[in-house]
Amino acid sequence: MRTYLECVPCFLRQALEASHAVTSDPIVHEKVVRETLRLAAGMSFNHPPPWMGQRIHRLLREVTGNWDPYREAKRRSNSAALELYPGLKEQVAASADPFAAAVHLAIAGNVIDLGCKADLHDGDVQRAIEEAMTAPVASHEIDALRQAIREAEAILYLADNAGEIVFDRLLIESMPTDRITLVVRGQPIINDATRADAEAAGLTGLVEVIDSGADVPGTILDQCSVAFRRRFEEADLIIAKGQGNYETLSQECLDGGQVMFFLLKVKCDVIARDLGCRTGEMVVRKYQAAPQSTVAGRGEHFDWVSEEAHS
Amino acid sequence: MRTYLECVPCFLRQALEASHAVTSDPIVHEKVVRETLRLAAGMSFNHPPPWMGQRIHRLLREVTGNWDPYREAKRRSNSAALELYPGLKEQVAASADPFAAAVHLAIAGNVIDLGCKADLHDGDVQRAIEEAMTAPVASHEIDALRQAIREAEAILYLADNAGEIVFDRLLIESMPTDRITLVVRGQPIINDATRADAEAAGLTGLVEVIDSGADVPGTILDQCSVAFRRRFEEADLIIAKGQGNYETLSQECLDGGQVMFFLLKVKCDVIARDLGCRTGEMVVRKYQAAPQSTVAGRGEHFDWVSEEAHS
Repeated sequence: MRTYLECVPCFLRQALEASHAVTSDPIVHEKVVRETLRLAAGMSFNHPPPWMGQRIHRLLREVTGNWDPYREAKRRSNSAALELYPGLKEQVAASADPFAAAVHLAIAGNVIDLGCKADLHDGDVQRAIEEAMTAPVASHEIDALRQAIREAEAILYLADNAGEIVFDRLLIESMPTDRITLVVRGQPIINDATRADAEAAGLTGLVEVIDSGADVPGTILDQCSVAFRRRFEEADLIIAKGQGNYETLSQECLDGGQVMFFLLKVKCDVIARDLGCRTGEMVVRKYQAAPQSTVAGRGEHFDWVSEEAHS
Repeated sequence: MRTYLECVPCFLRQALEASHAVTSDPIVHEKVVRETLRLAAGMSFNHPPPWMGQRIHRLLREVTGNWDPYREAKRRSNSAALELYPGLKEQVAASADPFAAAVHLAIAGNVIDLGCKADLHDGDVQRAIEEAMTAPVASHEIDALRQAIREAEAILYLADNAGEIVFDRLLIESMPTDRITLVVRGQPIINDATRADAEAAGLTGLVEVIDSGADVPGTILDQCSVAFRRRFEEADLIIAKGQGNYETLSQECLDGGQVMFFLLKVKCDVIARDLGCRTGEMVVRKYQAAPQSTVAGRGEHFDWVSEEAHS
């Protein structure tokens, strides 16, 4: 997804919120806001929005000298999610459709996003879980995902945030773990999951874990390691969690045999419009190369979307 | 009031909303957003926020070649307000305290602010009037204003927006009109009232009307005409309507004998914090030079505010 003009005020809001989250020094706050303004003035709006998120947080790391300012927040998120895990695991097992229940919960985990809202409290998480179990998620999309998992030989699961990754474990455990590779970020960026979070979530003993090689809060292939890009090309099914992965991958060209599913809670109007849904919806969205086109444009990848809806 | 970092995302939101209000050309939208980013990156945050509003709207006038893009919106606002006027006039007359009723209505008129919210509908105006009549406004502030009017020889009434200026007429008619000079903006800027709106509101026959000489959505004295500044210095009472006048005048030094009253509906959290009140409140706020200080700093002007509250 490209950067829309509506994303620009949000860049500044993010710069300000992130500055306050990382330091109480008003000189740093101003420096980060001014640098975000300068960068945004000159950036190509063909970049997806997480391109700017990356730059804001790189700058914050640089000026504060703190390589991983969200470390403690990530630890708390993982810890809180792990406390919930045994109960959720039972809930999945007792469900009439355990796979669908695990999909619901994996998306519910996507509300734990400090990058999007800095003031999320525990009550919100609990409420999100309760709502998630009953929230409508298109059952034909869940069935399409179920079918794709059955057929896939190499599954790449792109994680999103710390805490959320514990909810991902529920879904991963509902899948053939020997065919799954879990992908985390290559370096700390906001509260996104890195290898340490995959370990904390108990996933390193369960599936192969690799990293993207990049510090992007999403997956910008050009910035990823060669090793990751090879695994991306070889995968026949990619499951991409969260808004950041949607924003960065929703315009990528896939090979003919590849299919990607986006799993996310839609938290912003721009993404809702891009997806053709409403803010707040829980979405499973299938995305694949249109067989008739060699270079697919935006929207052509989605088997559900009309040209008109994206014109 | 200086520009707070929290104002910066709002500048971009304003630039985007104003661009959409004035033209459907996406090239203009992008140009205005990028130029706002560039200007904001380099601006002094000692400027009050309307400094940026002025620049955004100057740029829009330049690139569209439209000198007064809100002309029709202003005409509609005046016209709608004039339809309400006879009924409101009767309501004031029938009130137990006609002056207080007129103050309430003058502030209610301040919700008609296309510069702040682009999608205000008529229903909102009607609701605002009903709410305004019962909304709490500190009675000691109204009494202080009543007293100041009684004592003043030269009263400057700084208008805010078109439409709103018809509501101002109700308050002006409750005052000694021979001692009042009404001030409008020197050139069209957003939907702010100019001489044409004072005429439409029937105020030119009632009081002397001058203009600020500037195209600022507020009153930045440095940018105002010499003639206006002289009148400002000579006034012993200044009544300043709306957020723009508050933002631009709340740090000005007044002469010892001068007093200023801000009348506004508080529409944003930053201004609420600056005023020490809640967003949504209707405020009458007395402001004057502290007799003990020669060069008064921020907050010292307010006879109600503790140093601590503004530190």
